[in-house]
Amino acid sequence: MRILVIGAAGMLGRKLVERLARDGRLGSERISRLSLVDLGIAEPSADAGFPVESTAADLAEPAVAAELVAARPDVIFHLAAVVSGEAEADLEKGYRVNLDATRALFDAIRACDRGYRPRVVFSSSIAVFGPPFPDVIDDDHCTTPATSYGTQKAMIELLLGDHARRGLLDGIAIRLPTICVRPGKPNLAASGFFSNIIREPLNGQDAVLPVATGVRHWFASPRSAIGFLLHAATLDGDRLGDRRCLTMPGVSATVADEIEALRRVGGDEAVRRIRHEPDETIMRIVAGWPQAFDAARAQALGFRADADFDEIVRVHVEDELGG
Amino acid sequence: MRILVIGAAGMLGRKLVERLARDGRLGSERISRLSLVDLGIAEPSADAGFPVESTAADLAEPAVAAELVAARPDVIFHLAAVVSGEAEADLEKGYRVNLDATRALFDAIRACDRGYRPRVVFSSSIAVFGPPFPDVIDDDHCTTPATSYGTQKAMIELLLGDHARRGLLDGIAIRLPTICVRPGKPNLAASGFFSNIIREPLNGQDAVLPVATGVRHWFASPRSAIGFLLHAATLDGDRLGDRRCLTMPGVSATVADEIEALRRVGGDEAVRRIRHEPDETIMRIVAGWPQAFDAARAQALGFRADADFDEIVRVHVEDELGG
Repeated sequence: MRILVIGAAGMLGRKLVERLARDGRLGSERISRLSLVDLGIAEPSADAGFPVESTAADLAEPAVAAELVAARPDVIFHLAAVVSGEAEADLEKGYRVNLDATRALFDAIRACDRGYRPRVVFSSSIAVFGPPFPDVIDDDHCTTPATSYGTQKAMIELLLGDHARRGLLDGIAIRLPTICVRPGKPNLAASGFFSNIIREPLNGQDAVLPVATGVRHWFASPRSAIGFLLHAATLDGDRLGDRRCLTMPGVSATVADEIEALRRVGGDEAVRRIRHEPDETIMRIVAGWPQAFDAARAQALGFRADADFDEIVRVHVEDELGG
Repeated sequence: MRILVIGAAGMLGRKLVERLARDGRLGSERISRLSLVDLGIAEPSADAGFPVESTAADLAEPAVAAELVAARPDVIFHLAAVVSGEAEADLEKGYRVNLDATRALFDAIRACDRGYRPRVVFSSSIAVFGPPFPDVIDDDHCTTPATSYGTQKAMIELLLGDHARRGLLDGIAIRLPTICVRPGKPNLAASGFFSNIIREPLNGQDAVLPVATGVRHWFASPRSAIGFLLHAATLDGDRLGDRRCLTMPGVSATVADEIEALRRVGGDEAVRRIRHEPDETIMRIVAGWPQAFDAARAQALGFRADADFDEIVRVHVEDELGG
């Protein structure tokens, strides 16, 4: 089985590549070749038991998509995107990368001769949803994104659905929850604090909480997110019917839930590292985010989330802090 | 007030232009200039009391959109589209005309200097919805189109919403019901019979009914559709908030309802002109169409549909058969 990962140098891309290299297989099939693409060279995992090649390329540039699909990968993970802050700040760049580049990928697949119909796993986002929403969002709820990023993801969901319906590719779009705890340094994303208030205290550092502890949001650990991607890659496409976009299951938790989960792992000392500094801008942004989903379709199809926020913290300790 | 109508030679375009020429105003404002665009020259109404210019141009061609917005129309009606059958038969053409050309229009508006923020009325369609649906589809239902045409309309709804949210244009997308009774000759559209079984018998001609009389669908008269377009053009944009796409109200009627409405106008003689010839292909297509909507938002915003199918037939008699 030949696998292509577009966006292989990102946080999820790197974890996916590590996992594929470790497993040596995807579902029941042995991996024969893994191709990694990102704007820079993605680090190939040292110990893969199969050939790994890495290419620095911009999918939005002409002919790049055609070159990538020329090797006819059986499975394509498309994780590359301009993130929400940048897509909001630079409209042209957001549409070029998040919409046009993905469309170029689908065009390139379509341009191959008949019979080439790869499984394409597209990382969509709960950003396709915008207010007003119900307390719990079900699988039939409309997509009314409140950002350009969410708009671009929702447009690709539609395009992917149409291509799949026409038998031009075997696509599946998965709407990822907010990934928590994100490894690495604090960043400037409005959602960063959800991870910062766990990661930094466990690392002996202070963290700032800019919102009230009653704020509720929808989370998955990085490990769960990789599980979603792998399950999406191996799922029987016939079980999806014509609805090729799935809201992923997750954990609905408040900041207070996060803090109590932190306390159970790191004690009061860790919790004291969280400094409450209300930030009106961030509070306003976060007020427009969904709080919980009923991801019934995805659960029926076998996608599995973390059990609760305690598990999300435990996964972080195991995967990032060496247990 | 300067008005641009793109797709002015189509059925709705022609009726809209007639109405604008007759009224001489849009809402409370006098029309100072009306620009018509279509692939061929649109017939300007002879008796307009203001300048009407007509241009043959393809919005999908480079620079056309920029030329059209150079005159800075205050209101743009964008009705041009490749219809569903053609968009399904020719994937590239459908995306080029229904997606790329509309995007070019938005790009051209964005490229104008700040302060130009026209009202853009985009004719979307209930084709953005696909099965499975509930018996009555509400304003929060997801768009899962079952055709490329519906996909392209839904993608533009998203793009329009994003542009409106960012203040780049003052857009509103209205999802039109199936227009019935369509004037003119019977055509090969799968939906054609809904109109044929009224129009042809009233004209002394036979008509074929390819589905069972229990089939239910969602209708508006051409006159109501024009009313929707005019109301969308004059509605206070602030009342829409960030949800710029509205499902239009309509009449949910069965084929049996249609036949009884025909009987009340044309008598048993007209009804006897309908020949039942079941067509498996059309039955299968129609089974995937929505039956009824709860268009609560549009109704609250003042959009008004026909009262019932009797009114739809009466409108046809008044507007097409000289009463």
